[in-house]
Amino acid sequence: MGIVLNGGTIVTAADNYQADVRIDGEKIVAIGHEIKQPEDQVINVDGCLIFPGGIDPHTHFDLPMGTFSTSDDFLSGSLAAVLGGTTTILDYATQFKGETLKTGLENWHVKADGRSYVDFGFHMAITDWNDQVAREMTDLVNNEGISSFKLYMAYKNILQVDDGALLKALRQAGQCGALVCVHCENGDVVDYLVKEARANGQTAPYYHPLTRPPEAEAEATNRVITLAQIAEAPVYIVHLTCSGALEIVVDAKDRGLEVYAETCPQYLLLDDSYYRLEGFNGAKYVISPPLRSVNNQERLWSGLGSGAIDTIATDHCSFNYQGQKDLGINDFSKIPSGAPGVETRMGLLYTYGVMTGKLTINEFVAQTSTNAAKLFGLFPRKGTIAPGSDADLVVWNPQVSSTITVEALHQQVDYTPYEGFNQKGQAKHVFLRGQHVVKDGQLQATRPTGIYLSRKPFLKRKVGGNV
Amino acid sequence: MGIVLNGGTIVTAADNYQADVRIDGEKIVAIGHEIKQPEDQVINVDGCLIFPGGIDPHTHFDLPMGTFSTSDDFLSGSLAAVLGGTTTILDYATQFKGETLKTGLENWHVKADGRSYVDFGFHMAITDWNDQVAREMTDLVNNEGISSFKLYMAYKNILQVDDGALLKALRQAGQCGALVCVHCENGDVVDYLVKEARANGQTAPYYHPLTRPPEAEAEATNRVITLAQIAEAPVYIVHLTCSGALEIVVDAKDRGLEVYAETCPQYLLLDDSYYRLEGFNGAKYVISPPLRSVNNQERLWSGLGSGAIDTIATDHCSFNYQGQKDLGINDFSKIPSGAPGVETRMGLLYTYGVMTGKLTINEFVAQTSTNAAKLFGLFPRKGTIAPGSDADLVVWNPQVSSTITVEALHQQVDYTPYEGFNQKGQAKHVFLRGQHVVKDGQLQATRPTGIYLSRKPFLKRKVGGNV
Amino acid sequence: MGIVLNGGTIVTAADNYQADVRIDGEKIVAIGHEIKQPEDQVINVDGCLIFPGGIDPHTHFDLPMGTFSTSDDFLSGSLAAVLGGTTTILDYATQFKGETLKTGLENWHVKADGRSYVDFGFHMAITDWNDQVAREMTDLVNNEGISSFKLYMAYKNILQVDDGALLKALRQAGQCGALVCVHCENGDVVDYLVKEARANGQTAPYYHPLTRPPEAEAEATNRVITLAQIAEAPVYIVHLTCSGALEIVVDAKDRGLEVYAETCPQYLLLDDSYYRLEGFNGAKYVISPPLRSVNNQERLWSGLGSGAIDTIATDHCSFNYQGQKDLGINDFSKIPSGAPGVETRMGLLYTYGVMTGKLTINEFVAQTSTNAAKLFGLFPRKGTIAPGSDADLVVWNPQVSSTITVEALHQQVDYTPYEGFNQKGQAKHVFLRGQHVVKDGQLQATRPTGIYLSRKPFLKRKVGGNV
Amino acid sequence: MGIVLNGGTIVTAADNYQADVRIDGEKIVAIGHEIKQPEDQVINVDGCLIFPGGIDPHTHFDLPMGTFSTSDDFLSGSLAAVLGGTTTILDYATQFKGETLKTGLENWHVKADGRSYVDFGFHMAITDWNDQVAREMTDLVNNEGISSFKLYMAYKNILQVDDGALLKALRQAGQCGALVCVHCENGDVVDYLVKEARANGQTAPYYHPLTRPPEAEAEATNRVITLAQIAEAPVYIVHLTCSGALEIVVDAKDRGLEVYAETCPQYLLLDDSYYRLEGFNGAKYVISPPLRSVNNQERLWSGLGSGAIDTIATDHCSFNYQGQKDLGINDFSKIPSGAPGVETRMGLLYTYGVMTGKLTINEFVAQTSTNAAKLFGLFPRKGTIAPGSDADLVVWNPQVSSTITVEALHQQVDYTPYEGFNQKGQAKHVFLRGQHVVKDGQLQATRPTGIYLSRKPFLKRKVGGNV
Repeated sequence: MGIVLNGGTIVTAADNYQADVRIDGEKIVAIGHEIKQPEDQVINVDGCLIFPGGIDPHTHFDLPMGTFSTSDDFLSGSLAAVLGGTTTILDYATQFKGETLKTGLENWHVKADGRSYVDFGFHMAITDWNDQVAREMTDLVNNEGISSFKLYMAYKNILQVDDGALLKALRQAGQCGALVCVHCENGDVVDYLVKEARANGQTAPYYHPLTRPPEAEAEATNRVITLAQIAEAPVYIVHLTCSGALEIVVDAKDRGLEVYAETCPQYLLLDDSYYRLEGFNGAKYVISPPLRSVNNQERLWSGLGSGAIDTIATDHCSFNYQGQKDLGINDFSKIPSGAPGVETRMGLLYTYGVMTGKLTINEFVAQTSTNAAKLFGLFPRKGTIAPGSDADLVVWNPQVSSTITVEALHQQVDYTPYEGFNQKGQAKHVFLRGQHVVKDGQLQATRPTGIYLSRKPFLKRKVGGNV
Repeated sequence: MGIVLNGGTIVTAADNYQADVRIDGEKIVAIGHEIKQPEDQVINVDGCLIFPGGIDPHTHFDLPMGTFSTSDDFLSGSLAAVLGGTTTILDYATQFKGETLKTGLENWHVKADGRSYVDFGFHMAITDWNDQVAREMTDLVNNEGISSFKLYMAYKNILQVDDGALLKALRQAGQCGALVCVHCENGDVVDYLVKEARANGQTAPYYHPLTRPPEAEAEATNRVITLAQIAEAPVYIVHLTCSGALEIVVDAKDRGLEVYAETCPQYLLLDDSYYRLEGFNGAKYVISPPLRSVNNQERLWSGLGSGAIDTIATDHCSFNYQGQKDLGINDFSKIPSGAPGVETRMGLLYTYGVMTGKLTINEFVAQTSTNAAKLFGLFPRKGTIAPGSDADLVVWNPQVSSTITVEALHQQVDYTPYEGFNQKGQAKHVFLRGQHVVKDGQLQATRPTGIYLSRKPFLKRKVGGNV
Repeated sequence: MGIVLNGGTIVTAADNYQADVRIDGEKIVAIGHEIKQPEDQVINVDGCLIFPGGIDPHTHFDLPMGTFSTSDDFLSGSLAAVLGGTTTILDYATQFKGETLKTGLENWHVKADGRSYVDFGFHMAITDWNDQVAREMTDLVNNEGISSFKLYMAYKNILQVDDGALLKALRQAGQCGALVCVHCENGDVVDYLVKEARANGQTAPYYHPLTRPPEAEAEATNRVITLAQIAEAPVYIVHLTCSGALEIVVDAKDRGLEVYAETCPQYLLLDDSYYRLEGFNGAKYVISPPLRSVNNQERLWSGLGSGAIDTIATDHCSFNYQGQKDLGINDFSKIPSGAPGVETRMGLLYTYGVMTGKLTINEFVAQTSTNAAKLFGLFPRKGTIAPGSDADLVVWNPQVSSTITVEALHQQVDYTPYEGFNQKGQAKHVFLRGQHVVKDGQLQATRPTGIYLSRKPFLKRKVGGNV
Repeated sequence: MGIVLNGGTIVTAADNYQADVRIDGEKIVAIGHEIKQPEDQVINVDGCLIFPGGIDPHTHFDLPMGTFSTSDDFLSGSLAAVLGGTTTILDYATQFKGETLKTGLENWHVKADGRSYVDFGFHMAITDWNDQVAREMTDLVNNEGISSFKLYMAYKNILQVDDGALLKALRQAGQCGALVCVHCENGDVVDYLVKEARANGQTAPYYHPLTRPPEAEAEATNRVITLAQIAEAPVYIVHLTCSGALEIVVDAKDRGLEVYAETCPQYLLLDDSYYRLEGFNGAKYVISPPLRSVNNQERLWSGLGSGAIDTIATDHCSFNYQGQKDLGINDFSKIPSGAPGVETRMGLLYTYGVMTGKLTINEFVAQTSTNAAKLFGLFPRKGTIAPGSDADLVVWNPQVSSTITVEALHQQVDYTPYEGFNQKGQAKHVFLRGQHVVKDGQLQATRPTGIYLSRKPFLKRKVGGNV
């Protein structure tokens, strides 16, 4: 017995057309007309759009930050994700100093396995580089389903690696079928400016963006692309925020380099004026890289439209305003850096991208789902609506309007950066591998059934045979 | 009774997956597994790829050139097209001096109606601009299914229009839902250099590229994009050939302008050394813009990979070497400008793009079919494989190898620019609106059944509503 | 008997140092210490700077505009020039439709000979291109001391030439030792936008800049540089105003092309908000190209600092507000385009360039004098302070402050665009070929003694011999 | 009693004109005609050019390299310099690990004082950054005549400093009136590639350029300019070699940043094909950055012509082929990096720059002398020919032709990279502060009389007052 979604408009990265979708077990088995089998359950979705389940390729659930962790763990984070229309997340499993990658990975499996309402994979974040780690990379690609690694050019003395490590990791990744994701900010610059600000008694949240200038991001972006070029490896720029960095990505793609870029809703919709909010409210927007001046937004939208930016992730990394963010009440540099977003991504992009005409509906699907699936070894299992793919589907009702409030959201954090934003459309039904987990906008699943996704290696572009 | 293609791999601009395709009448009605209806005919296509029928958005069939016409008319040209895997062509219906657009259009209907083996639409080429023409543009968009117009910046005193006309046409097009296609070469420059060369007694074919330098193309490309920006209109650059012009397109897209670009297989695979071939053989490659130095090729491939170039057309405009090209034996400027290509496009791109890893298989489909359908108002009827779309399908057998020779081709012209090139793959079956017109690589259709395609207006990107 | 200026600081394009200058007859004969000869008159200039006399390479004196002429003729214009510290002007002698260049030149000699307080040369402005004109160019270079020609890309149907003429003129100039000066605005665009504005009843002065957008200037700049590259000729961009055009010049110079650029004080110090002045006052600022948005100013200053812009001229072209400018009271397109500036150039640049640190004192001299002398065949006779050069000297008293008002100026026009601007420094003494024509800021000359300057051919950069 | 040079053509960065020069004691006192005083000695220099003495702002004399030193010390190096037409050198005094700057400076005074045939100053090279060093910078500027410092982005674990140190040094320099000179290559990249090459058994000299790719230079150039922008400090790029780095400098200048660049004759005249010379001869060309592919040369010449590159230095750092270079016979990375050039700079630039028309004679003077004087606090004492300036003069006889051979040179090293190159012109006479140290091309000085030059602070461009 299957399920037939009847009457909707199917939207993929390339197409949109009216047709029925037939699900059998975990898979989509047919699309079209007259495809119903006798025993099938029919769900009418007249007037709705059917998207591939959203893929958020950048989350930090249950991330330890010294004495505390991010306020969302996999349970709450994944619940929020699925209600927002996201059915797969890729979280950054982190190797801490002194650990092997394997240990870091095992720690993350403990956090996530059996505790997620969406399917999930891990990027492996490397913070302690050595020759052993290089060897482990290949092992993780071959045996653990990990085909992407992250390195940080910022967070001096904590997460930051030097250019030698970065180059080696890129070379290794290029050879073993992995994609390196890089946080691009010059950590030495940030470190210097933060110390200088503190020495000057500059403690308010609005010193956060002033000590992480866009030039430091553009510089690091240029640097890592140079390293990737020398290493003959692809590279993925996480959370790109500014026109300076975008220019460099545009130029690199134009020269035929395999460079990919991700941005986030916060950089498209918010700006650095938020740091000047009354009292300590600016702390809610302390994220890294910081929000930028408003003129960068238009350039990022253009970058999405031209294909220079490939994906839209959230960098969901939530801290409560009360009890966590306020650790930095007397020193902006002590404010935990991060903000929530996994639940609001699809709705915001649909509303402020598709409905304004900045994105086509196909680009929306590509950037919120398909491209991440392709880059991170999940395609065509995830990221599209096609026979044979997992039945991860979002039935989107474009008729519903709502206002985003922290009360209405399911993220386990005491604020949302988008408080008061209007939203058009709603994830009315969500299917996860054929399970009807969200129905009429309400959680239907009785327990977390998301599974770990073992991902395929990254396939370099110019691998073709001879003629 | 329908037809089911069984066992193939479906490829669209976004997806590739194994599934059956069910055709009923002219349409695709279902895709998936277990979709066969009792009466259906099943055609086994194991091991084959199934592409949307190719769309060639730039042909010149039956084009009058004074005392003679191009050697291919709609009958021979469309026959060659369909055997090569192309099921739709967009030909340039031309208004000549003194004609209305309507007259030009009617002339082209006479040439094409009932004489094409593929479906066809017309761009309207404007060569005699006046206020009446401006009014006619809107009429053609609204009532004749013409949503694209072409203007020439080259061919002084013949086809060339001045910047005032160009700007007006762009403004008009932007307002009435049309896309303006532009031949970008500075005709004054060409005119001057040709006269200078002739005055110097420089008559050989290799003076052709020397009198049409890439700078003259880049300049015109920059100019028309400026005009389009001022007119707030989209623009489509036909047959882009060189890195200088590409840079300008990249920059324009990056600034969020609606600029689209087309290139052709000849600019990707041939270079200006061909003009130095023995004897008069260089004349076979006299096309405008000319073939460029070899270093441009890599940049064009990068432009396809990055999405800066949207479509691959042929600019099929065939003249026999004997009897037509040789009109210029004593004066390169008298060589009719143009070359054939409609039959070889899909095979060349598959072989030298996909098989070398320069293009993904999805990019190949996008650039040879889907993008043209979207830009020229044919989508989703054409350009994809989806329920509800026309059953224009190419079953591509990747196992076949062959060598391109003029004898083996069906174009009605006595040479091919690709003589001796290897080709991987073959259009084994072709379906045109459900009709099985090519079977096992042989024409199956007994008469030309292609129809005229009335096209939808161009939809500007940022047309979205308010939030 | 000579004259010794004693105690001043000599400033050239490269140097500044304290020394005496000895003048004998029309020439500087010695610089240094202990150079006084027994009979010499000594003028003490303690605390003053000594500049080479200013060269304004762009004026329009006594220019016919149909039923009237510019309000300044050579008598009044040159008087204003010399009092402002300018000792040489290059005026645009204009060939009108139907005239030979020779006729145009003779007309200008009639206007200027014996009627100028400063030395003068002529650029020849070509508005009626034909083969005869091409031949005349060489003649003027060889026999008339004219080594620069101007063509217009704007003023459709009046002054504008097409790209073919432009290319031919560039080729001819490159071969006969002349430099082509070009007004870069796309005249077709302007023509279209003006007609559109008028059709919409948009008549106020602030429609002037809206109908001459910076994109139309950048486009034309790019175009003429392309033509110059093809012609293998140098080119000089007159009155460059905007960052878009500047980028193109920077890029051209970087590629080794011989491209030179001029800007004017109005583009450095005024902006398009002036068009919104109360009543009809915006008309005073109707010049072509128009004033731009304020953000362009910083880029122009950078361009002067980096050497991308070579000269600062005035484009002095004065019309009375009462009786001339008001011809356009009901239609901005009828406002005569132009504004005065020949008297205020040196003071404004010294005040807002040198005193603010935007220009070094040497750059100031280079851009207001030396570079023009070099580009236009007057060096080293003019443009520097060196033994053997004409004794054209400005003794600048940096201690004087003043406010610019129309009453205090000597230009024969009823307003100044700089009304109320502060000025630092004053041309205390001016020497023209050894004659003490301005003394303590007052005219000393009893009659106009300026002479016509027969200029040397332009020397292309890469003309060197072999090794 | 003075000296009068009679009959020559004086050339400065701005001017060239025929005049006599009168020297009295150490200074130029007058220029012009009829300036001879009764007792003066007259030296006839008919037909000769008179240049300001060359300034080589980048030498390494007597530099310790572990167990040995560069083959030229101050005695031999300065002797070669003066015979080649250079009268001032700026050597890199180096602080080694554990030393204070003061100690490093004292060490260099010991090497140089009383042992130089030309005047000299020191840049202070910082290799061990700490807070004490920051304080010393100010002290050296104020009390020791050192107004420039150098930091290295290459030579990992030896000279390389991290971005934090670089940023701090730039900030400090910007505040205390110093200019930071930076060796721009990404040392981590080089370190990685060298190790990789050695691991692969790649030992020949031609692996030197392959392990120091131009991308690593362009990246570092971009990085340090970003740091300088953040620090609001000027920066001077030493030995720029490639088009990638040049583009970045052009862009920075265009944005108004105070960025200066130096190149060297070897990068203009030699290319990476020299590393493939027979046997071990490639080792002679092992310098850092390495010689580049030949297409970079044209871009560097353009950069000199457009003013993007400010100075031409030598980076003279000589090692004997026999006994020093051959330490790397089995491992390219052990070849001491450096080559001689202080003697040949002026002749090569005159021959291959001026005589080919690539440089004007004024640019030649600016780039070999004046600009360095201005940037490094020596102007107008050095770098020009003007009353009051030091009488450092080169009388250049343009009639002499010669061939460069190691035998004919005075550098204390067993090869010259320019063996067999033709040279036009010769330094016939050289005056150092009025002393006639070279006469008819032969050393005339009987002992080294060069003195230490205490230099003025660097003056930032936009320091101007208010209006």
